[in-house]
Amino acid sequence: MTDLSHAAPSCPIAVSDITHWDLETDVVVVGFGAAGASTAIEAARGGAKVMLFEAASASGGTSALSGGEMYLGGSGGTPIQNAAGFKDATEDLYQYLMMTGGPNPDAAKARLYAEGSLDHFQWLLAQGIEYKNSYIAERCIEPSTDDCLIWSGSEEAWPFASGAKPAPRGHSPKYLGMGGGKYVMEQLAKQAVAAGTEVHYNARAVALIADHHQHVKGLAVKIDGKVLAVRAHRGVVLCAGGFIMNREMVKRHAPLMLRSQYPIGSIDDGSGIRLGMSVGGATVNMHEGFVTIPWYPPGSLVKGIFINNQGQRFINEDCYHGRVSHHAIQQAGDRIWLLQDNATYAVSEMHTLARMEIGAAGDSWEEIERELGLPHNSLVSTVSVYNEYAANGTDPLFHKAAKWLKPLNEPPFVAIDCRIDHAFYASFTLGGLDTLPTGEVRNEDGQIIPGLFAAGRTACGLPRSGAGYSSGLSLADASFFGRQAGIKLAHTPL
Amino acid sequence: MTDLSHAAPSCPIAVSDITHWDLETDVVVVGFGAAGASTAIEAARGGAKVMLFEAASASGGTSALSGGEMYLGGSGGTPIQNAAGFKDATEDLYQYLMMTGGPNPDAAKARLYAEGSLDHFQWLLAQGIEYKNSYIAERCIEPSTDDCLIWSGSEEAWPFASGAKPAPRGHSPKYLGMGGGKYVMEQLAKQAVAAGTEVHYNARAVALIADHHQHVKGLAVKIDGKVLAVRAHRGVVLCAGGFIMNREMVKRHAPLMLRSQYPIGSIDDGSGIRLGMSVGGATVNMHEGFVTIPWYPPGSLVKGIFINNQGQRFINEDCYHGRVSHHAIQQAGDRIWLLQDNATYAVSEMHTLARMEIGAAGDSWEEIERELGLPHNSLVSTVSVYNEYAANGTDPLFHKAAKWLKPLNEPPFVAIDCRIDHAFYASFTLGGLDTLPTGEVRNEDGQIIPGLFAAGRTACGLPRSGAGYSSGLSLADASFFGRQAGIKLAHTPL
Repeated sequence: MTDLSHAAPSCPIAVSDITHWDLETDVVVVGFGAAGASTAIEAARGGAKVMLFEAASASGGTSALSGGEMYLGGSGGTPIQNAAGFKDATEDLYQYLMMTGGPNPDAAKARLYAEGSLDHFQWLLAQGIEYKNSYIAERCIEPSTDDCLIWSGSEEAWPFASGAKPAPRGHSPKYLGMGGGKYVMEQLAKQAVAAGTEVHYNARAVALIADHHQHVKGLAVKIDGKVLAVRAHRGVVLCAGGFIMNREMVKRHAPLMLRSQYPIGSIDDGSGIRLGMSVGGATVNMHEGFVTIPWYPPGSLVKGIFINNQGQRFINEDCYHGRVSHHAIQQAGDRIWLLQDNATYAVSEMHTLARMEIGAAGDSWEEIERELGLPHNSLVSTVSVYNEYAANGTDPLFHKAAKWLKPLNEPPFVAIDCRIDHAFYASFTLGGLDTLPTGEVRNEDGQIIPGLFAAGRTACGLPRSGAGYSSGLSLADASFFGRQAGIKLAHTPL
Repeated sequence: MTDLSHAAPSCPIAVSDITHWDLETDVVVVGFGAAGASTAIEAARGGAKVMLFEAASASGGTSALSGGEMYLGGSGGTPIQNAAGFKDATEDLYQYLMMTGGPNPDAAKARLYAEGSLDHFQWLLAQGIEYKNSYIAERCIEPSTDDCLIWSGSEEAWPFASGAKPAPRGHSPKYLGMGGGKYVMEQLAKQAVAAGTEVHYNARAVALIADHHQHVKGLAVKIDGKVLAVRAHRGVVLCAGGFIMNREMVKRHAPLMLRSQYPIGSIDDGSGIRLGMSVGGATVNMHEGFVTIPWYPPGSLVKGIFINNQGQRFINEDCYHGRVSHHAIQQAGDRIWLLQDNATYAVSEMHTLARMEIGAAGDSWEEIERELGLPHNSLVSTVSVYNEYAANGTDPLFHKAAKWLKPLNEPPFVAIDCRIDHAFYASFTLGGLDTLPTGEVRNEDGQIIPGLFAAGRTACGLPRSGAGYSSGLSLADASFFGRQAGIKLAHTPL
């Protein structure tokens, strides 16, 4: 028997060292989150024999920790968007994805997704995921009810609103309370199994098995303390999440994310990405991450302004909470405050989670400025410029939309403390393997690595910029592009 | 004969496919810049047989495009530092390197370099590089004379001055005019040849040759249209520069650098990094780059203030030009201005290169604000807060040192246009392969890849953060850690 006991993700095992295949299949899927489940469903339904290896003892992965929202639209809109009065043109969804994709958006993925998103909604329904036909117009992070449609991004905010007609696109499943990701994953996992996927739990991928041209032939998996060699006749699909829990990788690739002390993940140790890199898989945007302090609702808080350690504003506060937070962690210094007056102030519904506390209160902005220890006229002039223009419904510095503009001139005033080293800034990584829309992994020269696929946060997909993230984008990307990989593999000849 | 015509950097050639070695040596060095030359010198002098392959038709690489400055000090200071009145403790150099290394400095390299930098100066002298015993106290980018010692970083600026006793450490060679890198490289190249290095020009590395455990055995090189297999009994050292000229790689890894329209490089197509990644080499900080608009001298310009598109300051202007520029390209919007009054204004000595032009002039800051189209009281309040504190010799917002503080209150006033999409912002990349101080390349699990080394900008070394870059750091790192790789390989048994 081959000795594979020293195998590690960053170095592939030579197929010439394999004397015996313990298991054989067409398709190997690594990880049972949304990407892995969706890959398995399509590959198995397409006639391929599929084995799925999950390191945990149950399905779900990090997808199950989410709110279960999917970012969906285009093609005129989903029935739920339409019922709420929104048409959603494919081109508007495409432009929004391109604008929020940062300086290096993936046009091919954005195009395919914009055109296929409505169909994907129908597919999700067909998997047994239910959606209530309802719409929440107010700002929220995710519904605490079983309602569906929410504004889950920066669609109405500058600069996005001017480049793409806004529509709410966050579709939350019919699940009472927060955390609907668990419900979504139960349905997808059930379908994967029903389609014929052979699932192995407590099975950790330890290394790819490749030939001497770096064509991937299989996977070494550790089960019950033994490393088994699994032959994948068609391909291995890496759906093992991101790397936010691997602090060494975060330090090497996304050091700014070290500022967030609340990584969100299940395993997310970067093993999927490391497996891909071991055979020359290229990466994209390894420095990028989603980071957020969930500072609203209620929406009235959006009428306040964020300031940094210099008393300066830094973003239009009507953006999605993650976009605001992305800019907050880019600021020099750890101190961030949210300024409110008597008319706009409310206790954030998220304040216990977010750890947002009153940092200063006073009857004048001069008093707040002094209390925060800021230089004379720093905070005061920031508020003064803001108020002068807000009175006329404009924000020439940061372009907050008129509906959120109101001079902060009704005492008492407060500064809510959102210090980065104290408040709750959650994070996960957005960088990953460079894939085609089919999930095929490329090397740094742009060549496809035969037999290797990736989806979900192991790949760099639609959610690729902390500044442009929208809730529901990661789960939508994982399930949609997981499906593309499954479909591709179902049609790959032996 | 083996057919290697389809080889590409991102996929290694299997040693089992090699039927014949065209060339055999102990050490293969890829690239004839400062890192490659220094590696070759030490390896050859240590008794190893060294072959060096350079894609261009002459030595020099991107090192030859530089000013030739080396960032040197510690151990009490170089003789030139001492003659200028500066002691420079090893610990101060170490702390400075750690503080300027960004959120993820490399403590092992900083320590080794701080302790060995003075010896390295002596070594450079021994290679025939001459330094005039002279010091320029005034701010400059690099001497236009043949003078030596300059302030080439942010040593005296906040926050560095408080963590490490400042000393000037930029050592420019005795070469009349700018561009001393060519002179430095001539000496190093001469020594490499004299030490017995067999140099092949017009020889492009096309792929690593590795065994089925990804141990590097040699290199495939294209010379005169033919791909030759070169056996490296001890190791291959990748010294092929960064990737600023490979715009696809810049887009994937360092998209912010796309804002700079003036990449500085010779070849710098990322081929060295791609070769390393092909066998699982890990990378570090691939998003980082050096970017600069060389906006001074004269030093009086440092008494002005930079503002962004919102009329806000964003940095203490007494930092090194590259640190100021790094923060400039992080700002939202393309518009950056440098504000001066009648007392501080001077035509920048670099203005032709830097493309800095007068954007607005007026007798009051209100007039400048209007002329620039900035919101009422935005620029004016920024200047007002600055002036109020500058009058007392303090800068509580950004901590510019007292010697550069003067209220900007003597009309006429000007705003010098430093727009990112118009002015000269030069750039090169700082991310690269993850190496030990010996140059050994690690994979993403931290394991050493046998037979593979890297130095210079193909590795991620001391210069690893655009915010912390100092002139002379890249050349010092390339030559010093190139030497370490050469020494290691000279002592590696066959």
